[in-house]
Amino acid sequence: MSKKKNKPFRPKARRPRGFEDKPAELLRAERKLIDAAFSVYDMHGFEPLQTPAFEFADALGKFLPDEDRPNVGVFALQDDDDQWLSLRYDLTAPLARFVAENYDALAKPYRRYQAGSVYRNEKPGPGRFREFVQCDADSVGAAGPAADAEMIMLAAEVMRAAGLKDGQYAVRVNNRKLLDGILESSGVPNTDEGALQRLQVLRAIDKLDRLGAEGVEALLGEGREDESGDYTNGAGLGTAGIKAVLGFTTASDADRGTTIATLEKLVGTSARGLEGCKELTTIDSILTATGFGPDRVSYDTSIVRGLGYYTGPVFEAELLADIRDKKGRPVRIGSIGGGGRYDDLVSRFRGQTVPATGFSFGVSRFLSALQRMDALEQSVKPPVIICAFDRSLMGDYFKMAEELRAANIRAEVFVGSGNVTKQMKYADRRNAQIAVLMGEDELAKGEVTLKDLYLGAEAAKAIQSNEEWKSSRPAQETVSREGFVGAVKAMLS
Amino acid sequence: MSKKKNKPFRPKARRPRGFEDKPAELLRAERKLIDAAFSVYDMHGFEPLQTPAFEFADALGKFLPDEDRPNVGVFALQDDDDQWLSLRYDLTAPLARFVAENYDALAKPYRRYQAGSVYRNEKPGPGRFREFVQCDADSVGAAGPAADAEMIMLAAEVMRAAGLKDGQYAVRVNNRKLLDGILESSGVPNTDEGALQRLQVLRAIDKLDRLGAEGVEALLGEGREDESGDYTNGAGLGTAGIKAVLGFTTASDADRGTTIATLEKLVGTSARGLEGCKELTTIDSILTATGFGPDRVSYDTSIVRGLGYYTGPVFEAELLADIRDKKGRPVRIGSIGGGGRYDDLVSRFRGQTVPATGFSFGVSRFLSALQRMDALEQSVKPPVIICAFDRSLMGDYFKMAEELRAANIRAEVFVGSGNVTKQMKYADRRNAQIAVLMGEDELAKGEVTLKDLYLGAEAAKAIQSNEEWKSSRPAQETVSREGFVGAVKAMLS
Repeated sequence: MSKKKNKPFRPKARRPRGFEDKPAELLRAERKLIDAAFSVYDMHGFEPLQTPAFEFADALGKFLPDEDRPNVGVFALQDDDDQWLSLRYDLTAPLARFVAENYDALAKPYRRYQAGSVYRNEKPGPGRFREFVQCDADSVGAAGPAADAEMIMLAAEVMRAAGLKDGQYAVRVNNRKLLDGILESSGVPNTDEGALQRLQVLRAIDKLDRLGAEGVEALLGEGREDESGDYTNGAGLGTAGIKAVLGFTTASDADRGTTIATLEKLVGTSARGLEGCKELTTIDSILTATGFGPDRVSYDTSIVRGLGYYTGPVFEAELLADIRDKKGRPVRIGSIGGGGRYDDLVSRFRGQTVPATGFSFGVSRFLSALQRMDALEQSVKPPVIICAFDRSLMGDYFKMAEELRAANIRAEVFVGSGNVTKQMKYADRRNAQIAVLMGEDELAKGEVTLKDLYLGAEAAKAIQSNEEWKSSRPAQETVSREGFVGAVKAMLS
Repeated sequence: MSKKKNKPFRPKARRPRGFEDKPAELLRAERKLIDAAFSVYDMHGFEPLQTPAFEFADALGKFLPDEDRPNVGVFALQDDDDQWLSLRYDLTAPLARFVAENYDALAKPYRRYQAGSVYRNEKPGPGRFREFVQCDADSVGAAGPAADAEMIMLAAEVMRAAGLKDGQYAVRVNNRKLLDGILESSGVPNTDEGALQRLQVLRAIDKLDRLGAEGVEALLGEGREDESGDYTNGAGLGTAGIKAVLGFTTASDADRGTTIATLEKLVGTSARGLEGCKELTTIDSILTATGFGPDRVSYDTSIVRGLGYYTGPVFEAELLADIRDKKGRPVRIGSIGGGGRYDDLVSRFRGQTVPATGFSFGVSRFLSALQRMDALEQSVKPPVIICAFDRSLMGDYFKMAEELRAANIRAEVFVGSGNVTKQMKYADRRNAQIAVLMGEDELAKGEVTLKDLYLGAEAAKAIQSNEEWKSSRPAQETVSREGFVGAVKAMLS
């Protein structure tokens, strides 16, 4: 098969852009985080599900079946029967397919959790990968706000399970129906007809941070010319509508009940708006009964992202730590996930509305936030390294390693090549604290030598002369072979 | 964008062939198995690694860069810069790429473990998927047989960690160098020149079960005509060679030392064969020192699979349970994984040999074997279901669920729609043992009703008349709200 038989093809060892090799420390933290979340979901009666990496492109919904090429943003390929397959770009679309495929067999509400890689065929950047891990929980077939309250509480519980203290995170809740209602009361019909105006309002609110109230006011009304002279059409609301929308963005109070009272006034007589208020009232009563105070879950009308996608309550989970970067500037941690109600999940397959609500977080995003908050603990210590001092004694070395492991101490025999100096260098690179040495002589005497490499490194800094170093042999201890496990334990502690 | 705006496209909810949705029970068992293996690897000083799903096709090595279409067997697609990307088909090829890419930065031996989905674009069948999970551990940069001994012991330790008892599994070890040596002594040069003959010999031995010694003898010599008249060319060994090879296939003894002694005679003066014997001797001494008896690890020259791929010691992990299928026929469990030494891992990238040895097992294969052996425990019990008897009391119900979870009892509030009858049906489908009921009246009285659905189902079988059923209210208990967690606990036990 090879064209150049005499000069073998030698590929360059490299990764495709936007794909990463995850290092050990991160992987252990990732496993711990996912385990913590899974255990929360398990305890709440959710069941795990794992859908495959591939779905039919048309089932994922980002594909137009009459085109030759799959849509941008998705990794797709043609199967041998010419059908397009896509790698999942999230865990929600496959859930929709799964529920539609197994609708009658599932006891409803069907509450499942899943974590796994998702794939985005997009331009990668720093911290922006084309393969990353999400962790989702969803309730399908659960119409009432109690199911939303449950998802909100789960989000807060996952934060705790990840090791965060109350006060280091907040779940902020909004409801799409509120803004819909306010707009309805301001003359924007709550139908497809009003869709463009609603979108313009959402976009305007989203710019509050950047443009301030005045700029947003213009965008809600006639429109606005920016500094470069570009003109953005406004949403065309009247004075009362603009006032109501701006009032909405500042309606949040630390007390959830007070916020609801403000919102009730703003939505006026809109049935949809009042429904939104009623849902928040029910959610509040459940949160209050179960002790989820406003420090953990607050009502925040400035949460806009997702208002276009979700159909009812919507929320974000944010990390709040007061931390600084290396230059002392405050670090924005921001949202690590969110969720809400989306009642049109399965409708593309079945043509019928199935109520659903869920919570999704970005595992890598969460981990890097924890990392920046110094909240990532190293769960596994470096191993004790047993040097292969005398190759004829390998059996003895492996037995010693077994004894350490039986005492729950991570341990390995050096199985590479090289003399003791090289082995010490290896122990150092593994960040090991202890190296164990035993030769023929020591074996005969029933002795073992332990080197404390941490202490040794410190001592080495202090000691000037090489002579002195050699004669003093710091951080080294000869112990009996019988009692060596205990001696290792003592040295580690 | 849509061509038929009035009639929306409604995709069929279905999966691509060979891809599965994994159910809850299996997923929990899978997580447990992988955790158990990971913990063994951690304790032995290995570090986790996660490589991405995609690699450059040329780096994976199953792709010819000058062809238009990727090779059969691999899922591949073209990136936007026209380079071919492939989904990994195993975890070894990506490891090779990773080691080559980071060679100098890695402390050697580099010992890593990894579990993850691999993808094969092959014809699926029953139990044969196009996406499945493998779990690998490898030592790279470890030349001596001590590293092989370590992998063999790890394989046995993983079997134990998976919950198997000694005697329910065996790790069977062979060494490619033995057969190479025997053939060398029989005139087959230990170079590329002898490659075809060695392959023919391997294929012949592999048919021992099916053809018996006589058929294999023919295949080792001149050749053989089968019943259909098809003729297979033989390996062309002489009488002494045939005798030596047949002697090799039956050289195994329960005692590892005895097997080695037999093999030493068979390999004659071949340096390669003697090297193989020496390696087995070293491995045996380590296994013996650490107490890995012949019941856990045996030397078995009938292990042929992998002899062509691996370059030194090779082994398989087999499950041995004496079990029967539903019709009473003995069930072959067989191999769930294997490994060995492969010293040419990184050479395609670096042009230099890097010694490596590893162990890989098929997670799904292992799980289905455990399932057939009835060795899969259900790790999570069904939840207690708190019925939403009165929607105005949802806060109270969620508080009750919280109290149960605080006592480590899995619990959920019914968040779907439907009356109590429907909720009972849901509890039943969730296989829940207990349903909790509390209405306004009970709340006022400080009482809660517990239904034992398991007992109820049994009682229902016994009771004939519907009247009797209603009046006796079997398997139902009214307890105080205060003490209800204790009452649930008592009912569960």
